[in-house]
Amino acid sequence: MTTVLDKPFDLILFGGTGDLSLRKLLPSMYRAFMEDEIPQGSRILVCSRKQKDFDNTLSIIETAFKKFMLKDEFCAKSFKQFAKYIQPAMVDVADYQKGWGKFVTFFEGRESIPRIFYLAIIPSIYGDCCENLDRANLVTDDSRVVVEKPIGYDQNSAEAINQKIANHFKEEQIYRIDHYLGKETVQNLLALRFSNSLFEQFWDSKSIDHIQISINEQVGLEGRAEFYDGAGAMRDMVQNHLLQLLGLVAMESPNKMGADNIRTEKIKVLQALRPITGDDVKKYTVRGQYVAGNVEEKLEPGYLEELGSGTSQTETFVAIRANIDNWRWAQVPFYLRTGKRLKRRSAEIVIQFKNVSHNAFDADAGQLVPNRLIIQLQPEERMQLLLMAKDMTQLKTVLKPVKLDLNFTESSSGFKSFGYKRLLLDAIAGNASLFIHRDEGSAAWQWVDPIIDYWKENNVVPDLYRAGSWGPNESDELLAADKREWIDIEK
Amino acid sequence: MTTVLDKPFDLILFGGTGDLSLRKLLPSMYRAFMEDEIPQGSRILVCSRKQKDFDNTLSIIETAFKKFMLKDEFCAKSFKQFAKYIQPAMVDVADYQKGWGKFVTFFEGRESIPRIFYLAIIPSIYGDCCENLDRANLVTDDSRVVVEKPIGYDQNSAEAINQKIANHFKEEQIYRIDHYLGKETVQNLLALRFSNSLFEQFWDSKSIDHIQISINEQVGLEGRAEFYDGAGAMRDMVQNHLLQLLGLVAMESPNKMGADNIRTEKIKVLQALRPITGDDVKKYTVRGQYVAGNVEEKLEPGYLEELGSGTSQTETFVAIRANIDNWRWAQVPFYLRTGKRLKRRSAEIVIQFKNVSHNAFDADAGQLVPNRLIIQLQPEERMQLLLMAKDMTQLKTVLKPVKLDLNFTESSSGFKSFGYKRLLLDAIAGNASLFIHRDEGSAAWQWVDPIIDYWKENNVVPDLYRAGSWGPNESDELLAADKREWIDIEK
Repeated sequence: MTTVLDKPFDLILFGGTGDLSLRKLLPSMYRAFMEDEIPQGSRILVCSRKQKDFDNTLSIIETAFKKFMLKDEFCAKSFKQFAKYIQPAMVDVADYQKGWGKFVTFFEGRESIPRIFYLAIIPSIYGDCCENLDRANLVTDDSRVVVEKPIGYDQNSAEAINQKIANHFKEEQIYRIDHYLGKETVQNLLALRFSNSLFEQFWDSKSIDHIQISINEQVGLEGRAEFYDGAGAMRDMVQNHLLQLLGLVAMESPNKMGADNIRTEKIKVLQALRPITGDDVKKYTVRGQYVAGNVEEKLEPGYLEELGSGTSQTETFVAIRANIDNWRWAQVPFYLRTGKRLKRRSAEIVIQFKNVSHNAFDADAGQLVPNRLIIQLQPEERMQLLLMAKDMTQLKTVLKPVKLDLNFTESSSGFKSFGYKRLLLDAIAGNASLFIHRDEGSAAWQWVDPIIDYWKENNVVPDLYRAGSWGPNESDELLAADKREWIDIEK
Repeated sequence: MTTVLDKPFDLILFGGTGDLSLRKLLPSMYRAFMEDEIPQGSRILVCSRKQKDFDNTLSIIETAFKKFMLKDEFCAKSFKQFAKYIQPAMVDVADYQKGWGKFVTFFEGRESIPRIFYLAIIPSIYGDCCENLDRANLVTDDSRVVVEKPIGYDQNSAEAINQKIANHFKEEQIYRIDHYLGKETVQNLLALRFSNSLFEQFWDSKSIDHIQISINEQVGLEGRAEFYDGAGAMRDMVQNHLLQLLGLVAMESPNKMGADNIRTEKIKVLQALRPITGDDVKKYTVRGQYVAGNVEEKLEPGYLEELGSGTSQTETFVAIRANIDNWRWAQVPFYLRTGKRLKRRSAEIVIQFKNVSHNAFDADAGQLVPNRLIIQLQPEERMQLLLMAKDMTQLKTVLKPVKLDLNFTESSSGFKSFGYKRLLLDAIAGNASLFIHRDEGSAAWQWVDPIIDYWKENNVVPDLYRAGSWGPNESDELLAADKREWIDIEK
């Protein structure tokens, strides 16, 4: 799992002057540059389709950096040095007649240098782009292609896109990105699980009561209305992010921490997800859509108002009770939740341990709260362990829950985690452990598709929830049926 | 385990103007008074034998408070109020002809008020004192007697003293104090063990590699030369403090946190200690005596120089590898260590967990250090959990040990633990859970006596160690033979 760039590379950003590239990818490379992580002789080819963008590539990037980067991150002098790595290029990824002739010349004499093609473009032209790269003989053995989710909208469409890429790249050359996996806390989850006997021995149904995985958004549609209304929360968040996190939390210990070992274990988890079909869909899933409500004391419009359409039944909220049918997780429910316009922005994994088997303390020592490990990804990256301890301010024995910070802040002071940077450098270094294997996506769709199909076929109308709430009542009822509740980690 | 004083009491301090009383007992009561923990109508009878002490009781106490208490603790105005609870008394505990007639009158009309007789006197007159209390008809059903260690110098002498006390008090009325058990961290150890599934499930030979219990002193004889040379570290520290701590760490989970439940479990542990006899004594115990050496850059004299005698073979250091023959602790060694004039003053229990069963990480991720729980009693009371985590400052996966503070300082800010105060209030409230049952002392002597006897019979000469070191080399070799080492928790 080491990622140190020790030889030059060519990073080719298709859609190089687009939103993703300007907000995330190029700032990530700039940060890497500032940390002296970019080997001499490397290049970043920033590809655009339009003459205007091509002519102004550097000034477009500079403007974006000043706008999107953190305070004090941008340094004009350093930017000039960084700019030397940048090679503007003009090419139409989908049309071999436009610009490819000139584009090919950029690579002359650099056949031995690894090429990382980053497709920051819409998935519908992934296939064309790969075909043109192949046609131009640019796909060397040491080439990789990085693609962004969402790939497709169901198993079949995803497979079609994957197949088009696979016609020109081997699976081990294809890097499917999920930026949640770039978070340091996710890395640390693997470190904690597999380097501490205290945790790994506990990581099963004997010790764990249940697990909650939530990605709660406070925002609404943010200009993605058209895409989102066609997709919904299930495709936008559950199929990829939530199931990826579930895979990492639930996987067996890999033999090695290599990419294939980890991905093999994640695939096994996704394949072991108990299918939710027929009327079980109603029992174990909740579908919601927000209506107008107060978010942090400001009245926000409902989904239909934001959409400007009165008929959509797209879900903006999903809650699911999932089960993994293997030895480790028998009887341990995984509660998944995601939604827009919820009360707070937060993403977290909560491992709820079982309580002690016997309470030997007096009634007036207070109630025993079971141990809990919280892995928070948003808004902050941190880990917390909830333990019971004696209230040291009292002479008599009163037990109370205390939260231990596993943030290790003293050891990481000043360190800011940038998920995209990490993933980008991993892709450049050829470390695929945090990228998604085709079979993972496929297994995830296989589990998700029947639920979406059932909703559609049975015309399951979303349960309404107010903007600024924690979702529809049905979400609480899903857990209440198991005598459990969503844990508000701020409390 | 609650200790709230809710009715008046009579605390009778025999040896009330002696060192223990002035340094520890009366300051503890003053602190309790300052916290409003002393019910109206309570009294503290400060008993002395000499007319001069009797006449000046209050001024003696005031002088001592000013000398021994923490900065800002003493308040002249409050002391005046506190003084109203104090009743000076003159009585010779060992001679019924001297002062008992008058002494008895103090208790007239207070038959229903609990009496706590604290024997801050030498153990050789415990029997006389109890006999005189009985003769004076002062031992009510609601009376308790508190005695200080050391009780005896071996099983027989301890039993003789215990029997003399038992002639006048029932076992449940006898409170044998060990001030190490009054420390908040010891309380918290019980809380942590029995209110967290994360710990209690791990508390056995399947998960724990070994346990170290150390009480390291930096001081030398401190004016206790005569007593100490007759006793040695084994009687002075191992038989009581170290074995008490071992009992609390190793005991089975009690049904309830009641005094009898806890003491029953501790007795079982002490009775399960594997006897060390014959040549095993040489193999599993180390006896040491210090010679002159540098302690914190100051040359300190050796034991013989301090003693002023050239012949003593008393041990000032003991290290033992102990085993507990029961299901929970099979194969788990308990390493005990105590000594004078060691490098630092520290008392701690180290729970060394086993390492993960398989290291899946790359060699360059670094070495995995097994998890460790440290319960420190001196110089500070704190708990620490050592875990492995990803070094967040590095992009590549480098694992490093991090120490989590279980001190819960945020929740206990400003709280200062006073072991004696806690134990004194427990004794007054009739909560015996932190006091030592006769059978515990007996079991401890049964284990300790054969070792001392072997040393004596075989003329085992102490291994020498320099003042300011961690004891003789043989102490390190004891652990090296098991491929282990003493853990320096400051490192």
